[in-house]
Amino acid sequence: MELPLTPLDLLARARRLFPDRVGVVDGDLRCTYREFAARCDRMAWALREDLGVQHGDRVAWLCGNTHELLEAYFGVLLAGAVLVPLNIRLAPPELRSMLDDCDARVLFRHPDQPDPAGPTPQVLLGEPHEQLLAAQPDGPTPPIEVDERSVAEIFYTSGSTGTPKGAMLTHRGLYLHAIHSALTNGLGGEDVILHTIPLFHVNGWGTPHYVTGLGGVHVMLPRFDAANVLRLVEAERITRLFLVPAMATTLLQHPDMEARDLSSLVQISIGGAPTPPPLLAEVEERFGCTAICGYGMTESSPTLTRSLDKPGEPPSAARRATTGLPILGADVRVLGAGDVEVPWDGATTGEICVRSNHVMAGYWRAPDESAAALRDGWLRTGDVATVSADGYLTIVDRTKDLIVSGGENVSGVEIEKVLAEHPAVLDSAVVGTPDERWGEVPRAYVVLRPGASASPDELRMHVRDRLAHFKAPRDVILIDELPRTGTGKVSKPALRELKAPPGV
Amino acid sequence: MELPLTPLDLLARARRLFPDRVGVVDGDLRCTYREFAARCDRMAWALREDLGVQHGDRVAWLCGNTHELLEAYFGVLLAGAVLVPLNIRLAPPELRSMLDDCDARVLFRHPDQPDPAGPTPQVLLGEPHEQLLAAQPDGPTPPIEVDERSVAEIFYTSGSTGTPKGAMLTHRGLYLHAIHSALTNGLGGEDVILHTIPLFHVNGWGTPHYVTGLGGVHVMLPRFDAANVLRLVEAERITRLFLVPAMATTLLQHPDMEARDLSSLVQISIGGAPTPPPLLAEVEERFGCTAICGYGMTESSPTLTRSLDKPGEPPSAARRATTGLPILGADVRVLGAGDVEVPWDGATTGEICVRSNHVMAGYWRAPDESAAALRDGWLRTGDVATVSADGYLTIVDRTKDLIVSGGENVSGVEIEKVLAEHPAVLDSAVVGTPDERWGEVPRAYVVLRPGASASPDELRMHVRDRLAHFKAPRDVILIDELPRTGTGKVSKPALRELKAPPGV
Repeated sequence: MELPLTPLDLLARARRLFPDRVGVVDGDLRCTYREFAARCDRMAWALREDLGVQHGDRVAWLCGNTHELLEAYFGVLLAGAVLVPLNIRLAPPELRSMLDDCDARVLFRHPDQPDPAGPTPQVLLGEPHEQLLAAQPDGPTPPIEVDERSVAEIFYTSGSTGTPKGAMLTHRGLYLHAIHSALTNGLGGEDVILHTIPLFHVNGWGTPHYVTGLGGVHVMLPRFDAANVLRLVEAERITRLFLVPAMATTLLQHPDMEARDLSSLVQISIGGAPTPPPLLAEVEERFGCTAICGYGMTESSPTLTRSLDKPGEPPSAARRATTGLPILGADVRVLGAGDVEVPWDGATTGEICVRSNHVMAGYWRAPDESAAALRDGWLRTGDVATVSADGYLTIVDRTKDLIVSGGENVSGVEIEKVLAEHPAVLDSAVVGTPDERWGEVPRAYVVLRPGASASPDELRMHVRDRLAHFKAPRDVILIDELPRTGTGKVSKPALRELKAPPGV
Repeated sequence: MELPLTPLDLLARARRLFPDRVGVVDGDLRCTYREFAARCDRMAWALREDLGVQHGDRVAWLCGNTHELLEAYFGVLLAGAVLVPLNIRLAPPELRSMLDDCDARVLFRHPDQPDPAGPTPQVLLGEPHEQLLAAQPDGPTPPIEVDERSVAEIFYTSGSTGTPKGAMLTHRGLYLHAIHSALTNGLGGEDVILHTIPLFHVNGWGTPHYVTGLGGVHVMLPRFDAANVLRLVEAERITRLFLVPAMATTLLQHPDMEARDLSSLVQISIGGAPTPPPLLAEVEERFGCTAICGYGMTESSPTLTRSLDKPGEPPSAARRATTGLPILGADVRVLGAGDVEVPWDGATTGEICVRSNHVMAGYWRAPDESAAALRDGWLRTGDVATVSADGYLTIVDRTKDLIVSGGENVSGVEIEKVLAEHPAVLDSAVVGTPDERWGEVPRAYVVLRPGASASPDELRMHVRDRLAHFKAPRDVILIDELPRTGTGKVSKPALRELKAPPGV
C-alpha cells in the first residue's frame, strides 16, 4: 500500500492520539494539541475560503517564533499551499524581492515587523488574524490530495551569489528529515523543546514536525533573550536546547546561569556555525548535560550531521567537538577531485556533498542555479572538510564566501554589490573577521575612485540603510589595491590575513 | 532529490559508520558490522554469480534465528532478489507448496531442518554454505537499481482460508516500518536485542533492519529456550526483549529467573497473541522493567500498535495492558458498518483496519485474495476491537477463525481440510481452546460417517502426520452434529462454548 509521505501526518497523529497534551506554550498561552489542530484547521479554511489561496500558491510569513508561525507549518499545508517563512532580520527591500520572486498570494505579518510595501495582500497578526480565524467554521477542511513530491515549504537562502534563492522542500523530504532527525538524536514524546532557533531558518532544524508527531512540547521563544531562555528552561522543564555558538556564549555569560535550575536538560545541540571545542566543553560543564555539534543547510532541510558518540564506545569529548556523523537517511561524503571520496585521514580536504531525500527539489524558478547546486546527483554544499579515521567530519573552510554572523549567513558578494552603488566606490571585497560574540562579522575593504572621497563610517551607513543591520560591515578599511589571485580574482584568504589598521 | 527508500541503506549505514561495532553475536561468533557486511556481500556474489539468481528471483530460507538468516535479510536484497523466509515448524509438504508457489530459485536450508524434497536447488548451511561464501571475491557487488515499490520480502501467512498466501512487502514499506517502529518505541544504538521472535515470522518485528541501521547489537537465538534466554540477558546485557505470551510464561516459571542479573532490561514487548493483564503485571514486577503489549500481522510488516504510556501523563498499567496505540506511520482504525469509525467508548466493536505504507503490496499471485484483504483502501485485519476514550485499542475477538498457539497462527480451516481426507470423517470443525502455556490449542469436533469408526487419537495422528506438529488438535471430540448458524454455517462461537466431555 502506498500513501504519500507528508508532515501533515504528524499533525494528524498529535490530534488523534494526544489531543489533551499541552503541546504548545507561548507566554501565557497553553494550547493542547486539540486546540492547536483546531487553529490550524481555521487557518486552512481562511486561506481557502477568504483569502483565495489555491492549491500550490505561496503563503508568506513574517514573524518571530510565535505559536502562529508554528500553526502555519501545518495550516498552510492543510490548505494545499506552500509555506514561505521570511527572516525577520531582513530589510523591507530584501523582503519585497522575495515576495515578488515567489509571487506570494498573501503575507501574514507581525505588526512589530516593518512593512515590505507592495502589492501582496497582508494579514496582520494579533487582532485582525484572530478575527479571521474566529470567523471560520469548526472542524477540518476537506482533505487535499498530497503528491509527496510536491513542494511544501520554500526558504530563501542568502547563498554565495548575493541573490536570494528559494530552496524548495517537498512533503516527502520534510517528512523523512523529521523522522530521521528525531530517531538519530533519540527524541521522544517526553521531550520539551524551546524554540531558540528561528522557525524561519532552515525549517527550525525539523522541530515543528517531529515534536508534534511524537507528542512532545513546543515552547515558543519569539526573540532570543538569555534571561528568558534560562527562566523558561527552569519553568517548563526544557529537555533539549538547540543553539548557535553566539547564543551559547551569551547564555554562559548571563548572571542567571547559576541561579536557575537547569537539571531538566538532557542535551544541547550547537550548530549553524563552527563551534570552538572549549565552548562545547564549557556548555557541558556548566549546563550539566551532553552537548553536541550539528551541521546542515537550508538546501538539506537542514540537518546533515550530529556529533553523537558512537554506540558501544566510550563517550568522547573530542568526537562531540567535530562536525559529526551523518544522520539517518543522509549519505554525506567529502569528495575530492573527480568526485572521489577523500581518505579518512583527518587531513585531506574535499567538499562536503550529500545524497538524500532531505535535499531540496531545487531552487524556485532558478534552473541554472539548481543544476549547479545538484550537479551529478550530489548537493554541493560548498563547505570544505576532513574526515577522521572513524568517519567524523570536521569543517575547515568554506569554498563559498559566506560569513556566518550570529547564526545568520551573510553573503560578502551581496554587500559588495551595495557598496558598488556608492558613487565614491571603485572596488570592494568583504570578508568575515572573528568576533567573540557573533562568531564572525563582515569587514569591507574598499578602493575609492581616484579623486573621490568617503569616510568609512559613511560607507558603513550606506550599507546599513539598504540591507539588514547585521549585514552592515563592522568596519570599513580603505585600501589602495585589493590582493588578487593568479587568475585575477580577489584573494579573500589574503584579505583575511591582512592585519587591521590601528584603531579598528 | 529523490532516492529509493530501502532497507539496504541501513546496512550501508552500519558498514560505513559502525564498522568496528560488534553487531552480531551468535553463540561463540562475534561479528563486527564490517565482517557482517562482508558476509552479506559474499552472499550476494554467490547468488548472482554461482547460483544464477536474477533480479526479482525468490530466494527461500529455512533455518532458525542464526546469523546466516540475519545476513540473508541484506545479502539477498543486495543481489536484487526477494527473500522468502520459511517457518521451520511447518511440515515438508507445506514447505514444498510454498516453494512451488513462489517458484523459489534456490533454498538455503539448515541441515537440522527436514528436506522439502523437490526440484528447488538447495544450499545446506554449515560447511557447504561457508565454502560457497569463501569462494567469492572481496568487496561489495555492483549496486543494483532499487525501485522502492518493488518486492523485497515475501512471508507466507496461514491466513483464514487454509491456503498459505505470500504477503509481498516492498523496500519502501519495510524501510518505513523499521524507522517508524524504532522511533515510536524509543530504540537507539545502545540497544542490545535478543532475537527471541523468529526472523521468519512477520519480519522479526522489524528488528533486522532498525537494529542494524542504528548500530545496535543483534544477539541470535536459534531456538527459544528459557534457560538460554535468561543466561544471554545477563551475559550480553540485553536491553529489549520481544516475547509472545507463551514465552513470557515459560520464562517466569523457570528456576533461573531469580538467579540471573536482568538489570540491563529496559523494556519487554509482548505480542503475537492477546496478553492477559496479570501476566503483563507479573513480567514487570519480576523482570524489573516496563512491559508493553504489541499487535501486528504479516500483512503490515508487522507492527501496528504498542501499548506505550502517553507522553506527559502518568504511567498506567491499565493502558499498557491494552492492545495499544498505533505506531508512527500507521493509520489504524476500528471500523463498523459502512466503514464508519466506531465511537471511542470502550464498548462498541468493529474491525481493525489499517492504512499505511507498511501494508503489503498484496498477496503473491493472488489478485482476488489481495483485493479482498485490501478492499476500499484499507487492510482488513479480521480482528475485532473496541477503542477506549483515550484511543487505546483492545482486541476482543477475531472475525477470522485463526487459532493463536504459542505465537503461531493456526488456521482451523486448514486442519478441517486434512481431517476431511480421512475416510471415516463426514464433517469437522476446529476451534481454539484456552491453554495456560500456549495461549490456545486447536480442538477438533468431528462427525463420523454413518457406520464408519475412528478413534480420536487416530484422527489426531492423521493430522499430525500431514501438518506441522503444533497444528495437530490437542484433542478430538466425536460429536453427532455440528451446531450451525441460521445461514447454515458452522457456529464456531457455539462450539467454543461446548463443555469438553470428561477425560479431555
